[in-house]
Amino acid sequence: MKNKKTVNKLWGTAFKHAPQEQAVLFAAGRDVKGLPPADEVLIPYEITASKAYAHALYEQKIITKTECSKLLVGLKQLNKLYQQGKFTLDPSKEDVHSNVESWLVNKLGMDVAGKIHSGRSRSDQGVVDVLLYMKEANLMMQKEVQLLIKTLTYLAKKNAHVLLPAYTHHQHATVTTWGNMLHSYAEAFKKDLKKLQIWHQLEEISPLGSAAAYGSTYPIDKNKINKHLQLNQVFNNEIQVMTFKGDAETLMVFNLTMLMNHLSSLAQTLIVFSTKEFNFIQISDEYSTGSSIMPQKKNPDPLEVMKAKASMCHGYLMSLLSLTKATFVGYNRDHQWVKYLVMDAIEEVALAPKIMVGVLNTMKVNQEIMASWTQKGFILAQAVMEGLAMEFQLPMRLAKLVIEATVKKCDEKTGFQLSVLNQVLTEYQLMISVSKAQFGSWTDPLLIAQKQMKKKL
Amino acid sequence: MKNKKTVNKLWGTAFKHAPQEQAVLFAAGRDVKGLPPADEVLIPYEITASKAYAHALYEQKIITKTECSKLLVGLKQLNKLYQQGKFTLDPSKEDVHSNVESWLVNKLGMDVAGKIHSGRSRSDQGVVDVLLYMKEANLMMQKEVQLLIKTLTYLAKKNAHVLLPAYTHHQHATVTTWGNMLHSYAEAFKKDLKKLQIWHQLEEISPLGSAAAYGSTYPIDKNKINKHLQLNQVFNNEIQVMTFKGDAETLMVFNLTMLMNHLSSLAQTLIVFSTKEFNFIQISDEYSTGSSIMPQKKNPDPLEVMKAKASMCHGYLMSLLSLTKATFVGYNRDHQWVKYLVMDAIEEVALAPKIMVGVLNTMKVNQEIMASWTQKGFILAQAVMEGLAMEFQLPMRLAKLVIEATVKKCDEKTGFQLSVLNQVLTEYQLMISVSKAQFGSWTDPLLIAQKQMKKKL
Amino acid sequence: MKNKKTVNKLWGTAFKHAPQEQAVLFAAGRDVKGLPPADEVLIPYEITASKAYAHALYEQKIITKTECSKLLVGLKQLNKLYQQGKFTLDPSKEDVHSNVESWLVNKLGMDVAGKIHSGRSRSDQGVVDVLLYMKEANLMMQKEVQLLIKTLTYLAKKNAHVLLPAYTHHQHATVTTWGNMLHSYAEAFKKDLKKLQIWHQLEEISPLGSAAAYGSTYPIDKNKINKHLQLNQVFNNEIQVMTFKGDAETLMVFNLTMLMNHLSSLAQTLIVFSTKEFNFIQISDEYSTGSSIMPQKKNPDPLEVMKAKASMCHGYLMSLLSLTKATFVGYNRDHQWVKYLVMDAIEEVALAPKIMVGVLNTMKVNQEIMASWTQKGFILAQAVMEGLAMEFQLPMRLAKLVIEATVKKCDEKTGFQLSVLNQVLTEYQLMISVSKAQFGSWTDPLLIAQKQMKKKL
Amino acid sequence: MKNKKTVNKLWGTAFKHAPQEQAVLFAAGRDVKGLPPADEVLIPYEITASKAYAHALYEQKIITKTECSKLLVGLKQLNKLYQQGKFTLDPSKEDVHSNVESWLVNKLGMDVAGKIHSGRSRSDQGVVDVLLYMKEANLMMQKEVQLLIKTLTYLAKKNAHVLLPAYTHHQHATVTTWGNMLHSYAEAFKKDLKKLQIWHQLEEISPLGSAAAYGSTYPIDKNKINKHLQLNQVFNNEIQVMTFKGDAETLMVFNLTMLMNHLSSLAQTLIVFSTKEFNFIQISDEYSTGSSIMPQKKNPDPLEVMKAKASMCHGYLMSLLSLTKATFVGYNRDHQWVKYLVMDAIEEVALAPKIMVGVLNTMKVNQEIMASWTQKGFILAQAVMEGLAMEFQLPMRLAKLVIEATVKKCDEKTGFQLSVLNQVLTEYQLMISVSKAQFGSWTDPLLIAQKQMKKKL
Repeated sequence: MKNKKTVNKLWGTAFKHAPQEQAVLFAAGRDVKGLPPADEVLIPYEITASKAYAHALYEQKIITKTECSKLLVGLKQLNKLYQQGKFTLDPSKEDVHSNVESWLVNKLGMDVAGKIHSGRSRSDQGVVDVLLYMKEANLMMQKEVQLLIKTLTYLAKKNAHVLLPAYTHHQHATVTTWGNMLHSYAEAFKKDLKKLQIWHQLEEISPLGSAAAYGSTYPIDKNKINKHLQLNQVFNNEIQVMTFKGDAETLMVFNLTMLMNHLSSLAQTLIVFSTKEFNFIQISDEYSTGSSIMPQKKNPDPLEVMKAKASMCHGYLMSLLSLTKATFVGYNRDHQWVKYLVMDAIEEVALAPKIMVGVLNTMKVNQEIMASWTQKGFILAQAVMEGLAMEFQLPMRLAKLVIEATVKKCDEKTGFQLSVLNQVLTEYQLMISVSKAQFGSWTDPLLIAQKQMKKKL
Repeated sequence: MKNKKTVNKLWGTAFKHAPQEQAVLFAAGRDVKGLPPADEVLIPYEITASKAYAHALYEQKIITKTECSKLLVGLKQLNKLYQQGKFTLDPSKEDVHSNVESWLVNKLGMDVAGKIHSGRSRSDQGVVDVLLYMKEANLMMQKEVQLLIKTLTYLAKKNAHVLLPAYTHHQHATVTTWGNMLHSYAEAFKKDLKKLQIWHQLEEISPLGSAAAYGSTYPIDKNKINKHLQLNQVFNNEIQVMTFKGDAETLMVFNLTMLMNHLSSLAQTLIVFSTKEFNFIQISDEYSTGSSIMPQKKNPDPLEVMKAKASMCHGYLMSLLSLTKATFVGYNRDHQWVKYLVMDAIEEVALAPKIMVGVLNTMKVNQEIMASWTQKGFILAQAVMEGLAMEFQLPMRLAKLVIEATVKKCDEKTGFQLSVLNQVLTEYQLMISVSKAQFGSWTDPLLIAQKQMKKKL
Repeated sequence: MKNKKTVNKLWGTAFKHAPQEQAVLFAAGRDVKGLPPADEVLIPYEITASKAYAHALYEQKIITKTECSKLLVGLKQLNKLYQQGKFTLDPSKEDVHSNVESWLVNKLGMDVAGKIHSGRSRSDQGVVDVLLYMKEANLMMQKEVQLLIKTLTYLAKKNAHVLLPAYTHHQHATVTTWGNMLHSYAEAFKKDLKKLQIWHQLEEISPLGSAAAYGSTYPIDKNKINKHLQLNQVFNNEIQVMTFKGDAETLMVFNLTMLMNHLSSLAQTLIVFSTKEFNFIQISDEYSTGSSIMPQKKNPDPLEVMKAKASMCHGYLMSLLSLTKATFVGYNRDHQWVKYLVMDAIEEVALAPKIMVGVLNTMKVNQEIMASWTQKGFILAQAVMEGLAMEFQLPMRLAKLVIEATVKKCDEKTGFQLSVLNQVLTEYQLMISVSKAQFGSWTDPLLIAQKQMKKKL
Repeated sequence: MKNKKTVNKLWGTAFKHAPQEQAVLFAAGRDVKGLPPADEVLIPYEITASKAYAHALYEQKIITKTECSKLLVGLKQLNKLYQQGKFTLDPSKEDVHSNVESWLVNKLGMDVAGKIHSGRSRSDQGVVDVLLYMKEANLMMQKEVQLLIKTLTYLAKKNAHVLLPAYTHHQHATVTTWGNMLHSYAEAFKKDLKKLQIWHQLEEISPLGSAAAYGSTYPIDKNKINKHLQLNQVFNNEIQVMTFKGDAETLMVFNLTMLMNHLSSLAQTLIVFSTKEFNFIQISDEYSTGSSIMPQKKNPDPLEVMKAKASMCHGYLMSLLSLTKATFVGYNRDHQWVKYLVMDAIEEVALAPKIMVGVLNTMKVNQEIMASWTQKGFILAQAVMEGLAMEFQLPMRLAKLVIEATVKKCDEKTGFQLSVLNQVLTEYQLMISVSKAQFGSWTDPLLIAQKQMKKKL
């Protein structure tokens, strides 16, 4: 029997739920997935931009209505072929621009197709293709981040009063709630969303008409072209478009980098919380992977991968900055590489928010274990200090010295002892004595946590 | 006599104008200038924030009116001492926060000064100090960039029709004007200015009240504190403030990095234009430095330094991103280092726009040399091609083949020859012949350049 | 009484041991410590290099024996003044080179001191000063890393059989020992040490004689100069020295970066192990710091700072690479900034190994807690699988399926149950039954760990 | 006729020589070329490592001779299929390891193939696959760099006395030769070669036997496995192998980065020298590309692309450093991404040295133009100063003041005038007069250049 057995993945039979397919692919990264030629991805944008350009050429009377119609029909046909997988790039034709124009010339003849490039350069075509691609990707990312914010906000409300030890320096600082922590991440992602939105305002600028950086003598009207592309703005100076090709890409990658840094923080926090020692949460089987050698392993791979992807973005951003430093005026070929960087970055991060949503929605939260820590040791020292100070009008700094002396005399295991506190107060000759009731009211973690949550959600 | 001679700088006596003092210091960098302790720079912001905090404590009745007054008087006195250079930080007290509170306790006694820290942590103090510092620096940078834009715009108008060969790939592409080139940089800096302005909208967020990341049980009102600080917004979640300490710094450094990349491009272009071989411009003696060994040297050091400073920013940004990746929830001490990074970045770039303004205002532009290139070789090939296409309704692509054939047959030194063009047209059996007048109208660089400048300035 | 109280640090009275002074400064970073002008640090190296140069000028008969003696006496005197703190740099003289030559001219007169610069440029002086500084720093770092390796090796031996759960993905993978883990870090640092040593072989190259990148017509002999400097090698091509100024700095910073990345890993591991939840170790009070608001806090700040310093190095390296990209042939002023980058990097990392040694030597290891995890849950699943496979000649892959089925049927809390395993074996029709003795021998963590440690230390 | 015309590339008919195919692809980058899945590239290395492992399992008696033979036959067969393009990865099987083991199990049955993974993990398999890949790539790069050095050395000798103005700060500093400049780059690449060679000594370390970071209880002998792999060394500590997965990749990428920075400098220098204004060299048509809009354009694209590729490496290195910072002990999934970074880097740089060799071998050097600058203006000021100082025993510093005064009085266009020099000498009351013969001997650029070249090649 066993001889017939086949092996697929090298792990998984100990899992109660099959891992989510997208999560497995997310973790598998580029092991089993290649990257297509950049210009293959850009084909639909090239067609869109060429259509707009044909319209504009006609409006400026550079081509006739008939010529325009023929070009539009040709481009439509090409698009159909592409959608059917029947149009692929010929590498000997260098790029998408040559491939498309060449196809048009073959199809429509030089007399018509030979006019599409009037007043246009591969340079401004290249910029507009990537811009249209980025615009779409940026809108897509906004949707993903919105879903993430929604998920976190929902869970924050639901867990608004689920107690959690509060950390600074990885150490117990005071108490808070699971909801408050999730809310803090929602707030971070809201800022990322704003940045993604502002990108359109800053960088969605139509470059068509700038040609190779200096325009042309054809009576091209950049605003008329853009009427058909409906981009946010048009360029003010054609040299700027080319000398600073890369600015829009760089801002986009910066925004994605900030997003990934925030995601990597949430990932790291969840990874630590899901260790056997913390045991605050359990990542679901759907978002775990196993080991080829250790039968029991369930690993938070999708979360670890978030961190890798943040680091990938760091590099992409650095390449963009290094590449665009000290650029000599005008278009330079090195700038072609900014395209790969922004495309690689988008490819790396596109799924990340969705995967995080999946992790959050499926993980198990061990409320009792989390809560159990909120009264151990000296975790409530700040609260006692503040209670003492407020109740007896003590200067906070003095109250802190009192509590520190108390902490020094108490044992970590038994934690705060009211008797020791009162003893210290006596030594300090402060004429103060704390009652059991007072102490109790200061050290109720739920009361402390509730104050934090007030008006928040 | 010569024995009496002293040596100051090791160069300069061949200069007609003494180098501008700030330019020399700009180029000298940190050779003869150290960096002060970060918290020394932050003293005034610490005092400002403490004043606001004292006000707010009083409004929340955490301290009395008298206590508040005493604290304000104390802080005012401290500020005076600082202004007089009489207050310096004691390193054994770790930071500006401890130094200031310690001074207040010594001055006003524990009963009063021991209350200033109620509900406050060094963590939120640290964030607010740097925020106030950044806000001021950011406003200062905006002024500097505005002056740079103004300078470039003025010079662009003045040189709107001064001919310049137009470059792509460092090679002659067509013609443009000196004014158009300067205008392209003005446009780039306008985008930088916008980014600097948006920073306030995204990151000018009062952190006071977040304490060490989890607030306090004192009845602190974050909005009331901010009434006194007048920052743009207040935080929504105290954990976010600390976990993502560094976000505001990172955006600021990113913006400065983009500015410096743009400046480095202008610098590099001017450096190339000021070589003996180009000789398009001469950097003034005021913005040049000399050599210790070569008597004749006048070097564009301030421009070279722009490039170094761009690279410095790349590194500061990378450090910020790497440092804030995968942060465990809450405050972590590693985040203290974001302060040095943003302060180092600001220190590096603060003078850069002003120095560039100086370079631009004092350099000499050799208009004749620039103009002389705008009719050499085949620099006007695009214009001829377009003239041919428009005049005779030729498809642009076909016209390009014709001109390419013409170029191939002509000699670089003699450049375009009308006779060769007409010969090629014949070979192509296009029934077209170009007249001398037509050719002349297509190859007037000024006409081409004027089209570019239309409606621009 | 309390009014008299002064406040120094805002924390610490709960500590049983005073924090180690160097550790506090390490954590305080640049808050209370500025950075001196770069060239102030270089004064002694400038003097050393000038002495060597004076010797060499005499040997080439460019100066007389008397002139040489006078110069050497002058430089010795200057060194004494510097040691006494009586020689500081005049910023108006730009750099250390001008300051020193100027002092010599004042002291010895132009007739003698005016000859010291024969065939020399500030460019090669600048390179040699930084090289001598780097050489010294690199040797110092080697000593520090050696001490760290020694400490880890000693502790690894001492704890060779102290049980520790073994982690992959932050999850329990199998078992290992505390000693094995420490040994793994010792091995990483050994590689860093090798890299530091190789630096001398690759980059300790005397630049003197290259002048401003093209040598001089004086009969300078680069080998004779170096006889006095005793650097590893001399340059082969003077242009290379200047065009690629920055190579030696970049390799040095890269090596330091790798060291800091390794240190940051050890730091992060110790930080996680010192959480209340893990409680594997306790960082000593000497290497902890407290909070200004939370009386109980003891934070592993020095370890967190290791991580920040790793990130600082990332940035310095990035700046170096960006700065030295696409350098035009010959010396360029932007390259002056490489000096600050390497000096900043060394300043940041110099103390890191020593602080780590202190942390390691003083922390408390909770052996029982660590050991307690090595038999919980399914941590020994790999060992059981391998025992099963070896004992019964089962294919490992089949044994894994068996153990995975067993894990699926058992409960995390109770862990492996032999009866369930035997039941699964029956279901698989493998005609195998595991005895209690066999199972016991496979699941003794100490036996597993001992295999790992064999021949290792 | 024209209607039949087809368009392939959008440029090129003005070129006298067809562009070199590899150069066009080099410039086209990833526009028309995708990247394969990483693990597809690793298939042959996986097979090699599995063969070695099967051998070693047999030698340790973990499998029988027959089992070993079957496995080797299976692996050989698989390799054949792969070579024939008949074995591709199934993405649902995650990676190359699962795909290969799965194929073997299908082919040979679980009884035999189920044993290949004994004591092995995908973790150490992953490390060894990439290591074997890197070793091969590193050896290949060494060959390419050796060819580059050989080419530069040959050209340096050939052009040893071809005069070239010598630059610092992009300005004329003195004179040198074309050969000296090329030699300086050869020297830089020699250092890169050394670094590539040292990589094997530092990082060619067999990881097999480390399993998932903690070895196994199988009697695996890491040295015996490596006998079959013939790697330089074997690991000392299995935890180190996994915690610091990425070290070998990082060093390799660092070395490639330094190589690319050096190449980018040569590229930038050649780009500037090939401007119309400099006109020192002409990049051949074979290594140029054209424009889609400007008929005359010949652009040095392959050289510009060198710069982009340097920046790509900067980013890859930064990602590696950021990714491997603060790693928790043991294997972590984020480290999988180091594989993509090193593979992307190698892919980017592999062709760069060869393309540079092509550019160097085919470009035209305009010796007369270069030489013409070596006597213009004040380019020989250093030489005159040194001649004056040596001839008349003047202190170099005084001679410099004299020459600076002379420069100030002369005109850039006419350059140095002996009469003015003598006039200044009189004003300085130095009792010195320079003869025409003396002046002539000091200002012969060839004599100066010859001194530089002495003993060099």
